[in-house]
Amino acid sequence: MALKGIAFNKKKGHILVSSIEHDCVLNAAKWLGKNGFEVDFLPVDKNGIVSPKICKKNNIYFHSDAAQSFGKIPVDISNVDLLTISSQKIYGPKGAAALFIKNGVKIEPLLHGGGQEKGLRSSTENVPAIVGFAKAAEIAISTMEKEKERLTRLRDKIIETLTKEIPNCYLNGHPVKRIYNNINVRFSFVEGEAILFMLNSHGIAVSTASACSSPKLEPSHVLSAMGLKQEEAHGSIRISLGRWTKESEVNYLLKVLPEVVKKLREISPYK
Amino acid sequence: MALKGIAFNKKKGHILVSSIEHDCVLNAAKWLGKNGFEVDFLPVDKNGIVSPKICKKNNIYFHSDAAQSFGKIPVDISNVDLLTISSQKIYGPKGAAALFIKNGVKIEPLLHGGGQEKGLRSSTENVPAIVGFAKAAEIAISTMEKEKERLTRLRDKIIETLTKEIPNCYLNGHPVKRIYNNINVRFSFVEGEAILFMLNSHGIAVSTASACSSPKLEPSHVLSAMGLKQEEAHGSIRISLGRWTKESEVNYLLKVLPEVVKKLREISPYK
Repeated sequence: MALKGIAFNKKKGHILVSSIEHDCVLNAAKWLGKNGFEVDFLPVDKNGIVSPKICKKNNIYFHSDAAQSFGKIPVDISNVDLLTISSQKIYGPKGAAALFIKNGVKIEPLLHGGGQEKGLRSSTENVPAIVGFAKAAEIAISTMEKEKERLTRLRDKIIETLTKEIPNCYLNGHPVKRIYNNINVRFSFVEGEAILFMLNSHGIAVSTASACSSPKLEPSHVLSAMGLKQEEAHGSIRISLGRWTKESEVNYLLKVLPEVVKKLREISPYK
Repeated sequence: MALKGIAFNKKKGHILVSSIEHDCVLNAAKWLGKNGFEVDFLPVDKNGIVSPKICKKNNIYFHSDAAQSFGKIPVDISNVDLLTISSQKIYGPKGAAALFIKNGVKIEPLLHGGGQEKGLRSSTENVPAIVGFAKAAEIAISTMEKEKERLTRLRDKIIETLTKEIPNCYLNGHPVKRIYNNINVRFSFVEGEAILFMLNSHGIAVSTASACSSPKLEPSHVLSAMGLKQEEAHGSIRISLGRWTKESEVNYLLKVLPEVVKKLREISPYK
């Protein structure tokens, strides 16, 4: 809605997208690229950091996808023109999301009809989901500081233990500038997919790519954009912590994962 | 999604819309009219009947908005190319709807991303709402025959009683070719809005336009397209019956409404 809304309002223009965006941003931009707009995908550094400062200087609208940060860290809207957040990412019900639009920024709606939500998203409002989203935001924000402290400690414990105890295990992304519930690590000589299946048989759920891309079995475009070789991206897993992750569960993971990697390496053709 | 999806796939073309469509169809068509497509709004007869036969003969895609008919009467998809239905209209949860697309008909998605729903509507699926929609459809279809009989009888009782007992009270729309839970009547010399407020004080809810248009206070575009003068459209109310409407409630309405109209006419400046 943000990308197409701005684009249809401007009728033509040049869209710059970082190459580590979620598929919803990448594919909306690609679609606009096929429908009259100029689109370029910008590289990021090896830690996946992008610098948006150029936008303000050049009067370019800046949209930020804050689905993963809202409710986890303070989100500053003073330097963005558009910002999207999602209910389901903060334990709220599916079916609700919000788009922040700075005063004066004009967008075209995607959905037309009765003129609900100031004409920007016609449709009978999904009130139960909206109320649930608001309550979920309230809870997330009131527990944010405590959760940040608790999960940062667990995250760093996992990163330290894995990279220390498992040979050829490396952290993907920035060691500190990362969301505190996310760990992305790679292991030489094994496939992330194999690790995932063996952990699953131990009752542990991890992922090899974001949930939205996982049906495709392609290496994560984010890891690729950060400079990882295909086999490095394929040897990576994502471990996510959440509100109900207990320290005992982390300890269990840290006991099982090194054994799993060891076992897989023993039968690996790559080593 | 249906209209814009076809339009963006074809890139250009001529869109014909009946003038009694819901705002979501009218306004999507109007938007396309401002964005490179030719759009015409077709008149209907005084009963609001439209004839789509011309489409098949001329190889034109035909979309039908079945939000109000699905779950109430059998819906035949053999002559449509696209058809939309909605969960909330059949007592299902908000946040789910379905678009039928005939084999071979190509549309462009509105939402891009992880490729869910065969790439046509990317977004993590709202599974609870989808399951609820399916259950609501199951219930609606299994009770359809019984409800049709029960509500048709109540509808016709209301129409007969009102048009017989209240002078200058007329039915809007076709007497038989109408959905069985809907009654739309007009009263000379009074405003629908005044009737609505007085019925509300008696605990009876009716409407003067569809829920989606009611904030606007304009006369219903559907009644206008059917040839009603502005004051006739303004003197109209919509009475909707539903799964939990009891005969005793209908009797209460039939006792209160004539009194309300009589009282309002006594103070009316129009008579």
